[in-house]
Amino acid sequence: MSVDAVLNQVDADLDNAMNRLMELLRIQSISTDPAYKPEVAKAAEWLVKDLQSIGFKAEIRPTTGHPMVVARHEGAGPHLLFYGHYDVQPVDPLALWNTPPFEPQIEDTAKGKVIRGRGASDDKGQLMTFIEACRAYKAATGTLPGNITIFFEGEEESGSPSLVPFMKDNAAELTADLALICDTGMVSPGVPTIAGSLRGMLKEEFTLKGPRIDLHSGFYGGPALNPLREISKLIASLHDETGRVAVDGFYEGVSEVPAEQLAMWKTCGFDEAAYLGGVGMTKAHGEEGYSTLEQQWSRPTVEINGLWGGYQGAGSKTVIPAEAHCKITCRLVGDMDPVDVRAKLRAHLEARVPQDAEIHWDSSLDGAKAAFMDTSRPEFEKARLALTDEWDREAVITGMGGSIPIAGYFKDILGMDAMLIGFANEDDAIHSPNEKYDVTSFHKGIRSWVRILDRLNG
Amino acid sequence: MSVDAVLNQVDADLDNAMNRLMELLRIQSISTDPAYKPEVAKAAEWLVKDLQSIGFKAEIRPTTGHPMVVARHEGAGPHLLFYGHYDVQPVDPLALWNTPPFEPQIEDTAKGKVIRGRGASDDKGQLMTFIEACRAYKAATGTLPGNITIFFEGEEESGSPSLVPFMKDNAAELTADLALICDTGMVSPGVPTIAGSLRGMLKEEFTLKGPRIDLHSGFYGGPALNPLREISKLIASLHDETGRVAVDGFYEGVSEVPAEQLAMWKTCGFDEAAYLGGVGMTKAHGEEGYSTLEQQWSRPTVEINGLWGGYQGAGSKTVIPAEAHCKITCRLVGDMDPVDVRAKLRAHLEARVPQDAEIHWDSSLDGAKAAFMDTSRPEFEKARLALTDEWDREAVITGMGGSIPIAGYFKDILGMDAMLIGFANEDDAIHSPNEKYDVTSFHKGIRSWVRILDRLNG
Repeated sequence: MSVDAVLNQVDADLDNAMNRLMELLRIQSISTDPAYKPEVAKAAEWLVKDLQSIGFKAEIRPTTGHPMVVARHEGAGPHLLFYGHYDVQPVDPLALWNTPPFEPQIEDTAKGKVIRGRGASDDKGQLMTFIEACRAYKAATGTLPGNITIFFEGEEESGSPSLVPFMKDNAAELTADLALICDTGMVSPGVPTIAGSLRGMLKEEFTLKGPRIDLHSGFYGGPALNPLREISKLIASLHDETGRVAVDGFYEGVSEVPAEQLAMWKTCGFDEAAYLGGVGMTKAHGEEGYSTLEQQWSRPTVEINGLWGGYQGAGSKTVIPAEAHCKITCRLVGDMDPVDVRAKLRAHLEARVPQDAEIHWDSSLDGAKAAFMDTSRPEFEKARLALTDEWDREAVITGMGGSIPIAGYFKDILGMDAMLIGFANEDDAIHSPNEKYDVTSFHKGIRSWVRILDRLNG
Repeated sequence: MSVDAVLNQVDADLDNAMNRLMELLRIQSISTDPAYKPEVAKAAEWLVKDLQSIGFKAEIRPTTGHPMVVARHEGAGPHLLFYGHYDVQPVDPLALWNTPPFEPQIEDTAKGKVIRGRGASDDKGQLMTFIEACRAYKAATGTLPGNITIFFEGEEESGSPSLVPFMKDNAAELTADLALICDTGMVSPGVPTIAGSLRGMLKEEFTLKGPRIDLHSGFYGGPALNPLREISKLIASLHDETGRVAVDGFYEGVSEVPAEQLAMWKTCGFDEAAYLGGVGMTKAHGEEGYSTLEQQWSRPTVEINGLWGGYQGAGSKTVIPAEAHCKITCRLVGDMDPVDVRAKLRAHLEARVPQDAEIHWDSSLDGAKAAFMDTSRPEFEKARLALTDEWDREAVITGMGGSIPIAGYFKDILGMDAMLIGFANEDDAIHSPNEKYDVTSFHKGIRSWVRILDRLNG
């Protein structure tokens, strides 16, 4: 049987595939907010039913957090495990959405048709590319392709607290010859991309406590320690004037990118002007002396993701608040160890807490090392050829600035390599208002998996 | 008629007076939040009715903002204008209140009975001390005391936008021989205090805009400008390492406190350990080289009252937000001009805004110069003697760290001096959760006004 029959089936069924995706996008599966727990469960159930409908043996697998979805099709060929996540980011600030985040729609834009809605790109649209590829195989050939396990989690956007225990408890079931992960993007529109490395992540949150109670800035302004001023000084101390992280020992474990890799990055189709200009930047604001791609793919960061304290309402309030709050994430590279980086970051800040203030850390937040793929495995070349066929453009192996801890867990816990292939674009506004997924990404993404499965099983 | 009969009437009617105050405290007159506009109006109407019930000719006087209350009793003696404000601060953070802020109650505490609720001290409890003194005169003598105009505003906690236009439009009606203002505190519990000076105020608010949209810290962390980091640097730049404001020219117009005044401050009963320790501080955190009282009464400040941006919800969100926000108030002293200070503050921050960021100022916020009372007027000595009689402790004339722009407006617009006498205590938690007013302050405050009116009319 030729792969063309399956590709034709993908083309013929595209409208139905988009309708199925939009059904999944209507489910408000925000995992970080406990209020949405029933919606997260609903998304898992939707997926189980859909997978069962095309012949997978699929089931909900409860955890102490949100459930996993595991599905199995036993067949010939290498055992492939496909991973995706069905949970989504919060939608705030809601006022900046042009359409309701959970009422997805197909829109015509200057750059082509897009599917608009929270999760369209991250990661419901992406995981559905693989399901739709399987569905097309089933429709065109009467059977699902090869030897597949599907593994979806619902906690990726909230630190995956259940993931490692679940993988340990179900190691035999989840260990395949290779993991396929679809949660990454293309380096530039139309350039098929395999991720060679991912940055790691460390999450932190702290409260800086000052006066025992909120104070009046007339009665106490001057003598009082102001936590908002002090937290600003703490944050300002994290970087030097060249953009370098000023935390002692922070760069231990970071290695420079080899020259040949840098050379490949320069020709990988990355459009720096579009990347920066698209979000209103005229230059890269990271460490001086490193290119935009290096800052994004191979350099560690300390970013502030949330900062608040005092009065935020309309008008003015002459308050010196009792406390201030800060959420931080660090991106890690090379051999940086999240436990070690956490200790250094905390030591840096604790050493700078002034008299009469206290720093309180949230102890619930996790971290993961950077991940490097074994791109010498033959599956990478097969996938590269399949992607090159589909996109009429040489596929590239690049770095990735994001953190998908699962790749590291697959390696460390299950001894399984992973291959990350995704079809998101830089302007998808994932984690932002007005998230979208290009219909081209969705359509050619499905076709890409058909071709990749054909080559991996060939 | 002896003043004792009036004082006895005050004592006999205290429970009723407290019930009346609690009725007023139940009205949620938060002026800064437009949602509470009807409640602000309700408080004004309540006051008009109460003043009419004791013989004042009282009325609501509409403005483009919240209404004024003006009441008049023509009688013999110097024309005295009493000022207070019936609006209150917002109540957030609501979770820190031990009782609902608008369900006032009398509580027994280790330091004696208190009236608990938003506005109990600032300023409903204080303004009611004067009304209750008048009521007692009326009950004991059959007539209101002397020659009185009462003037209450409902916008004091939101910048008094209607105050100056109203005073200009009604200058003849509002110009008396002396203004009495009850919106200040006692330097230490039991030490009757007349304010000799007040700090001025400048309000500012800005938004720092960075990326065009919220960004994912994996895709953009490194190259992206992070408004939360940048706003922290801006705020950290406002002070040097000695606590001195680092804004160029900020201290122009500030004069040192004369030695004899400093000497008086040292013996005025101010309990530094109680003042600092009561809110969890072991030292004064303002400018090095100045005492706690100097930092509070005679030195200018730049304080951050609100700071926010990015994700504030439960869990983590890997976002680099598009913008960050900051609310500032400066306390001004000496001849510092708010218009001039505003220009300097803005210039300081604008010079530090990085490439690809923009600062946007709220243009609706106002300012007022510091105010100095003419304590050589004979009314000050009369009031000092009356207060000394009531409190069995020499009354003192001190500085004040707060800003009550009305004193400056009375002088500048109406050519009228003001005398500020109030009975609040440092631990009243005004502008904070669990605001309270000591029953002693309320009771002896009423009695103080009876004695002051007796001496001023004597």
